[in-house]
Amino acid sequence: MSGAARRVLALSGGVGGAKLALGLYRVLPPDSLTVVANTGDDFTHLGLSISPDLDTLLYTLAGLDNPQTGWGRRAETWTFMQALASLGGETWFKLGDGDLATHVERTRRLAAGDNLSRIADDFRRRLGIRARLLPMSDDPVRTRLLTGEGWLDFQDYFVRRQARPAVRAIRYDGAATARPQPELLAALADPALALVVICPSNPLLSIDPILALPGLRAALVRCRAPVVAVSPIIGGRAVKGPTAKIIGELGHVADAAFAARHYRDILDVYIADEADAGRLGDISVPVRLTRTLMTTLADREALARTVLCAADGL
Amino acid sequence: MSGAARRVLALSGGVGGAKLALGLYRVLPPDSLTVVANTGDDFTHLGLSISPDLDTLLYTLAGLDNPQTGWGRRAETWTFMQALASLGGETWFKLGDGDLATHVERTRRLAAGDNLSRIADDFRRRLGIRARLLPMSDDPVRTRLLTGEGWLDFQDYFVRRQARPAVRAIRYDGAATARPQPELLAALADPALALVVICPSNPLLSIDPILALPGLRAALVRCRAPVVAVSPIIGGRAVKGPTAKIIGELGHVADAAFAARHYRDILDVYIADEADAGRLGDISVPVRLTRTLMTTLADREALARTVLCAADGL
Repeated sequence: MSGAARRVLALSGGVGGAKLALGLYRVLPPDSLTVVANTGDDFTHLGLSISPDLDTLLYTLAGLDNPQTGWGRRAETWTFMQALASLGGETWFKLGDGDLATHVERTRRLAAGDNLSRIADDFRRRLGIRARLLPMSDDPVRTRLLTGEGWLDFQDYFVRRQARPAVRAIRYDGAATARPQPELLAALADPALALVVICPSNPLLSIDPILALPGLRAALVRCRAPVVAVSPIIGGRAVKGPTAKIIGELGHVADAAFAARHYRDILDVYIADEADAGRLGDISVPVRLTRTLMTTLADREALARTVLCAADGL
Repeated sequence: MSGAARRVLALSGGVGGAKLALGLYRVLPPDSLTVVANTGDDFTHLGLSISPDLDTLLYTLAGLDNPQTGWGRRAETWTFMQALASLGGETWFKLGDGDLATHVERTRRLAAGDNLSRIADDFRRRLGIRARLLPMSDDPVRTRLLTGEGWLDFQDYFVRRQARPAVRAIRYDGAATARPQPELLAALADPALALVVICPSNPLLSIDPILALPGLRAALVRCRAPVVAVSPIIGGRAVKGPTAKIIGELGHVADAAFAARHYRDILDVYIADEADAGRLGDISVPVRLTRTLMTTLADREALARTVLCAADGL
């Protein structure tokens, strides 16, 4: 792929996806990248509108992410949480003092009639990010999980219960009627679109809410740009989080080919880790093997280049 | 005054009033004190319900007040404000990270249907305060000031414009229909009430909103306990803030006798500073002269003892 005017669209969840999004942002002309964030994990907590994946992308692309935790901001302080605990407030969801500014200001603007897209766009510009950063929709979509305790809200399952309950089903409340963010649909229809990247996020929790939006899957099938997905499973395991556990609990095989099978109707190239060379079985699209673990900034950039080259090879 | 069962009621604004409230709390049996906070300064900022005087009293009585600033919490951090500035948020009202927990948790509970009184009562218990701490009302009262720029909200005048515009009139929006906090009325009717203290807060901005509540002034006139006020003017000047300036702008003489004249219909004893000995003129109630400047904790306790003794002398 070449040419500064050609555009790349990345679909992403939080941590793992944000690492590749940052790699793409660094190796591409900065104005050519659009990153679409899952908002199925969004929730209201302490009266604040929190968009975890959008914020992880915001902080990561701005260079403000916390490399120790993988979420939240670097150089964070925790005075708020300590004071909240002393007042008897809920402390199961950790909100750093700096992170809180994002939620308070977003909540204020939403209450004033602004939408998530404009707020995210203002925030990324304020933080000096030249890539576009879009929520998948301005309408609420809420991922919920059926467990032995009944249907749980995503953060209730993921953070409060630390993803421990076995998952029997997932649903994306609101997805069927949510309008995809207009720029997302425009990007998919844009003749200048050179590539769609499905980042190595959890397919079931982070990417499927995006694909569940009306017309999104069809737009991806229809779009002329190749769709490249990166496996979130390396060496038969998820890098972080409960991805493999949930895939298994839902009756699938949590191997490095899972995402290729899962995205088969929209996929053109699949990128898996070289550690999984002998375990991929029968995948219906071309596969590129590379080192997919992104520990350093150089790893993120290298994987981004591999993703871009894989598309060029078609 | 003696007897552990006898009760003391203090009416207070923020900083200056809170100093005497702390003195009273320390020299009285802790369960015998009820402090009533002005809520005319309350406002909504960044979508958060902020009660500056109530919180200054909360922090002061809990030993969490910031002796450097005179407002907010000690050992405070400011990561939120810095992050908010980077996102383009409003930063004219300084909210410390720990202080923010009070506002976020209060706002959440108010939205859930709780009232200011119950929230304040829970907060003070959580922070180990044995005195009762009441907002003057659970209904909104908003102090507004007429200036050359028109009517300004209190914090807009006081913080944003640093009390610079000349004040032509003051009104307490909502006061005429606000219901006084039920425990406040009950305390005034309680035969065990031994003393009412009007703390050395700004009479026009901090005490008058309380006195403007329906029935409050009448209840104070009617109540059998003596009413003692401490002058907020020492040596012809306010200790801090624009008290003297505003009194003058409204056509009054900002001397140490001002509060005595202002409260004359409800007052039984007036306490002024010994520095004002020759300047008090004709005051219609007994006057006690003492050192009223509260620099140290010992000063607060000494003034509190003088207030209690002044009542005993009647």
